[in-house]
Amino acid sequence: MPSDLPRRVEFHEEGPREGFQIEPHIYPLDQRVALVEALAETGLKAIQVASFVSPKAVPQMADSEAFFAAIRRKPGVRYEAVWLNEQGFRRARATPGVDVSGKIALYASDAFAKRNNNCTAAEMRERVVRWLDLYAEAGLPIERALVMTAFGCNYEGEIPPERPVGELVWAHRACAERGIRLPKVYLADTMGWANPQSVRRLVGMLREALPDTRVGLHLHDTRGLGAANVLAALEMGVDMFDSSVAGLGGCPFAGHGDARGAGNICTEDMVFLCHEMGIETGVDLERLIEAARLAERIIGRPLSGRIMHGGSLAGYRAKAAA
Amino acid sequence: MPSDLPRRVEFHEEGPREGFQIEPHIYPLDQRVALVEALAETGLKAIQVASFVSPKAVPQMADSEAFFAAIRRKPGVRYEAVWLNEQGFRRARATPGVDVSGKIALYASDAFAKRNNNCTAAEMRERVVRWLDLYAEAGLPIERALVMTAFGCNYEGEIPPERPVGELVWAHRACAERGIRLPKVYLADTMGWANPQSVRRLVGMLREALPDTRVGLHLHDTRGLGAANVLAALEMGVDMFDSSVAGLGGCPFAGHGDARGAGNICTEDMVFLCHEMGIETGVDLERLIEAARLAERIIGRPLSGRIMHGGSLAGYRAKAAA
Repeated sequence: MPSDLPRRVEFHEEGPREGFQIEPHIYPLDQRVALVEALAETGLKAIQVASFVSPKAVPQMADSEAFFAAIRRKPGVRYEAVWLNEQGFRRARATPGVDVSGKIALYASDAFAKRNNNCTAAEMRERVVRWLDLYAEAGLPIERALVMTAFGCNYEGEIPPERPVGELVWAHRACAERGIRLPKVYLADTMGWANPQSVRRLVGMLREALPDTRVGLHLHDTRGLGAANVLAALEMGVDMFDSSVAGLGGCPFAGHGDARGAGNICTEDMVFLCHEMGIETGVDLERLIEAARLAERIIGRPLSGRIMHGGSLAGYRAKAAA
Repeated sequence: MPSDLPRRVEFHEEGPREGFQIEPHIYPLDQRVALVEALAETGLKAIQVASFVSPKAVPQMADSEAFFAAIRRKPGVRYEAVWLNEQGFRRARATPGVDVSGKIALYASDAFAKRNNNCTAAEMRERVVRWLDLYAEAGLPIERALVMTAFGCNYEGEIPPERPVGELVWAHRACAERGIRLPKVYLADTMGWANPQSVRRLVGMLREALPDTRVGLHLHDTRGLGAANVLAALEMGVDMFDSSVAGLGGCPFAGHGDARGAGNICTEDMVFLCHEMGIETGVDLERLIEAARLAERIIGRPLSGRIMHGGSLAGYRAKAAA
């Protein structure tokens, strides 16, 4: 076995925000709260709950203040939010219980930056500089920098690995010049282009460029390689992954094409992968599977997570031993 | 990158038999024929079409003779069938166009053998001896021996790796004693217990025990590790996999438990994995994705394959280059 498997892996749970935001339906607040509270009982330490974005553009996230207020909080768990502009950031800061550490996002593709933020990748860097100032004024540490479309882009095609690595090196330097520590950098496979070889190549290049910064991955299972990409990353010692319980965030419509983005890699399936390989996660897999089943009951259609349907081995092992 | 990746991988397509057999609905013959014919145009060289089993027990497979007769045959493609007893074998032999090379199956778990075949693993070996005689009488070569529940069993729990390896070594010796060549041995993860480490361990032990026999894997994606298990196997040079187009064979019902078996690993997703890693498959991925979409239209609900929904990168690469 490869010797550089991590001893312990952290999963950053994005299911509630991803799942409830992509569905056309607005789910009752108590159901959304129940899912977040169930996730907090699994041992997961960071849960992305909701977005502070325009209620006109995203009516599913219009009640984020009320959502955070309704959650019975578990000590030691960070309840996180997403914001895209200063107004959203102010709303997040004004909401009790939101973890508002600084996060910065960059683009490895101009074409996607244009579509998603109406700017180029270079213009996004200028915006990041303003965010660094805003976070500094607010006295907030920077938690992570993430680069989107790091492995490829539906609009721009192949992305040379130098581009995402360059963006994160730039972010690291921009922080350093301001006396800010950037502890974590993430490569995001926004559109599901990664494969085990490109994961190894990019992680290796990023490690070489930023040897003292922790590297994480934000992977989507758009083309079925999610678990293989996680394995390749684990074998390089990567120990931080963004993921979604039950695979939440997948498009609810049948068919295919640009709009049919798949969800993040599935948290409980990847926790299972880690546990079977002897890697700790701090997560109670059985409870997490129950949370995934709760998510499926709430959403009301089969979700893409696998072990929630196949059943954990612990149950079968116990039954067989009895 | 690991240096023992195979140059070329063979996929043995089991989707039509798996998919149409598990669904409660009986699909019109012309639709089933259309799927097999579409698959034959992709470059796949072996397609498991149907079973010759009791029409009372499996009404979905009652018209297997008519099904084979209706297929417009593509030269170079093997159209295969499953049979479980002599009556089924006679029906398969009597049906024009069925590839009837000999296949033998063994159990690594007594508990599953009892449930599935009402015998022990040892009694299954006695039955295999009779099959070897039958195949010899019929003048048929033996194509493969496969051992079920090689990685674990919902009824028996953990399976020591010596058991599946021992069964295949027995099969190899039983063939050799009769002057029969056994070219291929398969480890089947019938219930989705495999993980990358157990794949490496079992493949390594089997190779050591039978150094001149090709090793293949029959994997199910029951717990989300299918792609990771394929990657681990590829890195050991494994170059034969059973799989199902669109992930066909997954249980059509929501919920979970013993009856909720997931389908085989998804052919087109794993072909995509190979191609992205520079491994040849002889398969036209674009045509295979179209066949997967045809399967989904026929079945009439979203199937678990990913790239059929996310879209191939070839399309996006071409669009980006234009």
